[in-house]
This record gives sequence, structure tokens and C-alpha cells, in this order.
Amino acid sequence: MASLFQGQASPLDASRLVFSRSTAQRPVPLPGSSELWAQNCFEGMKVYRGFDGRLRLFRPDLNAKRLNMSAQRVALPGFDDAELVKLITALVKEDAPRWLPQDQTGRFLYVRPAIIGNGTQLGVQLPRVATLFVVMVPWPDFSMELPPNAKPRAVPGLRLLASQGETTRAWPGGFGYAKVGANYGTTFVAHGKALEQGFDQILWLFGTDGRVTEAGASNFFAIVKNEASGRAELLTASLDDNLILDGVTRRSVLELVRSRLSKELSVSETVFTMSELKKAWEQGRLLEAFVSGTAFFITPVCSINYEGCDLDVPQERQAVGASYASIIKGWLKDIMYGGEIHPWGLVVED
Amino acid sequence: MASLFQGQASPLDASRLVFSRSTAQRPVPLPGSSELWAQNCFEGMKVYRGFDGRLRLFRPDLNAKRLNMSAQRVALPGFDDAELVKLITALVKEDAPRWLPQDQTGRFLYVRPAIIGNGTQLGVQLPRVATLFVVMVPWPDFSMELPPNAKPRAVPGLRLLASQGETTRAWPGGFGYAKVGANYGTTFVAHGKALEQGFDQILWLFGTDGRVTEAGASNFFAIVKNEASGRAELLTASLDDNLILDGVTRRSVLELVRSRLSKELSVSETVFTMSELKKAWEQGRLLEAFVSGTAFFITPVCSINYEGCDLDVPQERQAVGASYASIIKGWLKDIMYGGEIHPWGLVVED
Repeated sequence: MASLFQGQASPLDASRLVFSRSTAQRPVPLPGSSELWAQNCFEGMKVYRGFDGRLRLFRPDLNAKRLNMSAQRVALPGFDDAELVKLITALVKEDAPRWLPQDQTGRFLYVRPAIIGNGTQLGVQLPRVATLFVVMVPWPDFSMELPPNAKPRAVPGLRLLASQGETTRAWPGGFGYAKVGANYGTTFVAHGKALEQGFDQILWLFGTDGRVTEAGASNFFAIVKNEASGRAELLTASLDDNLILDGVTRRSVLELVRSRLSKELSVSETVFTMSELKKAWEQGRLLEAFVSGTAFFITPVCSINYEGCDLDVPQERQAVGASYASIIKGWLKDIMYGGEIHPWGLVVED
Repeated sequence: MASLFQGQASPLDASRLVFSRSTAQRPVPLPGSSELWAQNCFEGMKVYRGFDGRLRLFRPDLNAKRLNMSAQRVALPGFDDAELVKLITALVKEDAPRWLPQDQTGRFLYVRPAIIGNGTQLGVQLPRVATLFVVMVPWPDFSMELPPNAKPRAVPGLRLLASQGETTRAWPGGFGYAKVGANYGTTFVAHGKALEQGFDQILWLFGTDGRVTEAGASNFFAIVKNEASGRAELLTASLDDNLILDGVTRRSVLELVRSRLSKELSVSETVFTMSELKKAWEQGRLLEAFVSGTAFFITPVCSINYEGCDLDVPQERQAVGASYASIIKGWLKDIMYGGEIHPWGLVVED
């Protein structure tokens, strides 16, 4: 099942677009700019059926803003953020009730807005035509189930493999911060090898000093007891060098921790290396690790393989729901499913 | 006009594929792996109508080999190189006579083999379906005409703009050596800005020392008088660090110079920086510069803008056809159009 909007409107005007079901077939006589030049970008979102029976989007304004930024990184046209939110809302209103009826509380559909260059010119040129569409589909809950292809394991959580430099995901002056296809297909080989070795995702390191950036298609967090102060710190890579994606869930985690946990947990968006993390682990100062993202939501990490050594992340507090990751996940879930009425949850009336 | 082959055959078997004209429409109910994950790769080739009336491909085995390598970089299936050459030959035999009749000697068509991932899964996963196709189209001769969007100019040749680090084309552990879409759409913004400023292509520098890599979608060569020996050297970036494309024309240039010009011109595939090139220019040691590629063939460079300063490349020898670039281009043209019978020219009987 898929629902999508597509149509012609420039500038983007939600009221002028056309709704079509999955039987729609796009005529593609020649490969488009997306298929040859990777001129594409997209978003990942969810629509939630709340415990109060209402449909909600989670901070769709941030996805719209990021899609706009990604589009411009690959020379696709920008648009009015608010029009995209209207378009997504209209699709949800039109079709979500069919696949996510009111009694399916606590469930969600996945929403993927995308823009692709589809001019048919074969030369390497600035594109002439682009298509914006939004697809909505059912999606497995990766934060509850094992990820695809994962082997059964005794300890819950993701097994990460720290990258060894053979493949580098992103680079200064590159596009690691943009949600563009060019960041994905180019990691499939390394990701496939990691799966074969029994890992779930790659933890992408950058540079000769092994700076921790992000994990697979999600942002990475570690909670470490500061060596000097003894205080717990939430560590995550900084956005400053444009290497990592500015995740909506990442941003929400940071905002919640800053506003609700500041007395016990300080936030450090910073450059930190895998050897620093290993040292903290050796000294018993690595308290937690988790990833965040729309697909993976908040998923704990159970181990990080670094230079052949498995750093097992403590699971005790996770197991009894007392970890910071569990607490933050609970808050986010409440906001998404209407357990807490919060401005981040945009209600779509159906 | 376009001609293409597409069909289902795994492993690739040229005898089993289906030929269809451009009216063919591929059903695409959901965006494919190519459109979302940039899982694609391609080649650029030409078929030449020789001065002897025969059709020729130029070293198609090298394109097949490179497509295979590119495919594997983005987790697309590999194939038997020889089957792809058979497939291209069959397309040329079938359809080139229609668009390139025997009296159109000295002309060519452009041939683009490509592989795209087009499974419809929306998750970031190793792909399930891929399509290999070959498109053949008429194409402007960029080596004779001005490039698209170029402003008229007094001096022939390309105006290059050396990149300033704002955008980095390729990096170690990346995919700059593979002909994958991810290397193209991500340069459109920088390329568009360069066009606006009156340049034709970007000369991509890498790293803080400004290493010269490649120019736009072509390889870059400089001929410099060696400071110590006074001997003329053909400089081009090395393949060693996997930053640049292993161009078929580049390779052919190097092989011809090594076999036919070794007494007067030494070859240096090496790391060299833009400041070294500038120093040579200041000392009057920069003799020539040109780019090579299938689309641009051998095209002289008339200037390189580096840190705001225009390095004007001497044009005197170019103007009278006495430059090394002219000589090499003449040899290649002879091989392509049958003026010299050479194993690099694969005759396709029609």
C-alpha cells in the first residue's frame, strides 16, 4: 500500500496538487536527473494514532525545513515550508484513516516526502524538471522489533561496528548534513559487510583521530561520566562541521534533556573520538549509548566493536526502564501519541 | 530520439535482452532505490561513423570494466564485461545506421549504459532489483562548439575555476573514482555558481594543500617545463588515492604519450598542487593545459582562476595545431574514425 501526492505546481502550492493511489504509473521514457545524477532528497516522518484516538505529526515543520535545505544542496528548487506541511497534512487527512483507523491507537504509518530531478536531459546539467511527492506506507517498528536481517541475540539493543576508514561516510565540503540519496547507496557495501559480520549498523568515524559522527541512518548518543567532574554527560556529535544529519529526534532529545534533566545530565554537542569513548568504557564511565532517528526512534546500543574489541554497554538500567534513554523515549512517545499535549505534536483532524 | 535495451536477465546475457524504442514507458509505482538512495552508475561512450564509412566503438571493454567496478561500489550486481560489450554492439548494429547513416562520416552518437537499483522498498536496505539499460542519443560536440551556457569569448578553450574548499568533490574512503550519480548532482550548485561567474567548469582541488584532481566531468592535464631538468612534463592526478575517475580518454592520452612522445614529453601521474601550478605559470613554465573525457574529448583550457587570479594558459601553439593537445587529439580522432587502424577501435559491422 502506498498513497502519494504528485502534480505540477511551481511555486509549491498544496491546494493545486493532485492525489493519486499506488496504481499511478509515472511515464519514464528516459532516465531522469535523479536516476543518473543522484539529484534527489527526501524526509522520513511518521503519523501517529494517539491513545486519545487522534492523528498527530511530530514537528513536521522541521522536516519541511530540512527537505528545503537538502533540495538546495543538490540544486533542486526550494519551496515554502508551510505548503509542504499543508500537503502532508492533506495526505494524512485523506488516507491515514483508511490504514490507521481510530481503534489502532499506539500505531503509526511512515511518511516519505521526496523531491527528485526528473528532467530527461542526459548531459550533466542543471536540471529543468523536478517532482515533489509524498508517499505514506506501513512500516515496521524498529525500536520494538529486531532490525531487518538481525540475528537473534541474548542482549537487546543494537550492535554497532565502528568504521575503520575503508569507507568514509561524509567529509567537510561534502553533503553528510543533507538528507540526499548520495549519502545512502554509497554506504550499502560497508553496511552489508557489517550485517554479514553480525552487526546492525556502522558507527561512522571521521578522520585519523576517529571522531564519532553518526550510526547508520541515525544519530548517536553516549552518556559518559565526566572524568574530572564525575557528572553524567550526554555526548553527541556537533552539527558545526556539516558532517552529520540534523535529526529531528536528535534535536528533540537535546531539547528535552536541556529542559527537563539539566540538573542531573549535562549536554555536550561536541567533537569526541572513539578512543575517548573506549577509555571511558575501560574506566567504567560509559553509562549508556543509544541511537535516535525517525525509523529507529530511541534504540539502545548494546555494544560497539572498535578495532576488533567489543565494548559492551551496561544494560542494567535499560532493562528496568530506568535508563535516561528509556525516560527520554517515554517523554517523546507521550508527545507523539498525545499522552502529553505538547506543541511538537501537530494534530490532524480526521 | 533514444534507443534502449532493457530486460530481465541474471546473470547478464546479451542474447536474452529485449530491444525497445523510446516510446517504452517503465511502470514506476513507487520511487526506486536509484531515486531515493542514489543507487546508480553509468558510462559515457560514443559510436563513431568513420571516414571509411564504418561504425566504431572506442575501447568499450574499458567502459564495461569500469561500469562493473562502479556498480559494485554502490552495491549493484556485477556482470560479465564481455556481455555488456555484446549488448552495446547489438544496439549499435540495430539502431545506429538509422541515426548515423554511412554518409555521415566524422559524426557520432552518444551511448550511455547505466545500472539503477529499482526495488521499491522504502527502507534503507540492500537492494533487491536492478535494471541495466543502454541509451543511445545524438549529442553536441563539446570539443568543437562552446559548452552549454557558455558566454562568447575571444580566446578558445575552457575557463576553469579552481574550487575554494566550500565544496569538496571527493575524499579518501569516498567514491570519486566510481562513475556513480552521487558524484554529480552534489556538484550542481557549485557548478551553477561557476557558470554564473562566466567559468565553464570547476577544477576540483582537494585538501588544505590544494591538490589538483579533475575538472568538472573530465580529467585535467597540464604540460609544465620541469624546473630542474627543463624537460616538458605531462602532469595529471594519480589514481592512487581513489579521488578521480579512471577516464578512458585519460588512459589513452597517457598510453599514447608514453608510446609516441616519450623522447620529448615525460609523463607524471602524481600529486601536484594548485600553488605549484601557479608557480610554474608565474615562471613561464606552464606550456599547456587541457581536459579529456568522452563528452569533452580533448579540449584546451584557456585559463584557470585560482584565488581570484586568472592564470592565462599560452594559446600560441594551440592556435596553429602544434600543441601536444592537438597532436594527441589528432591521433585519437584517427583511431576513432578509422584514419588509423588500431586495436582500440572496435568495428561494428552494419
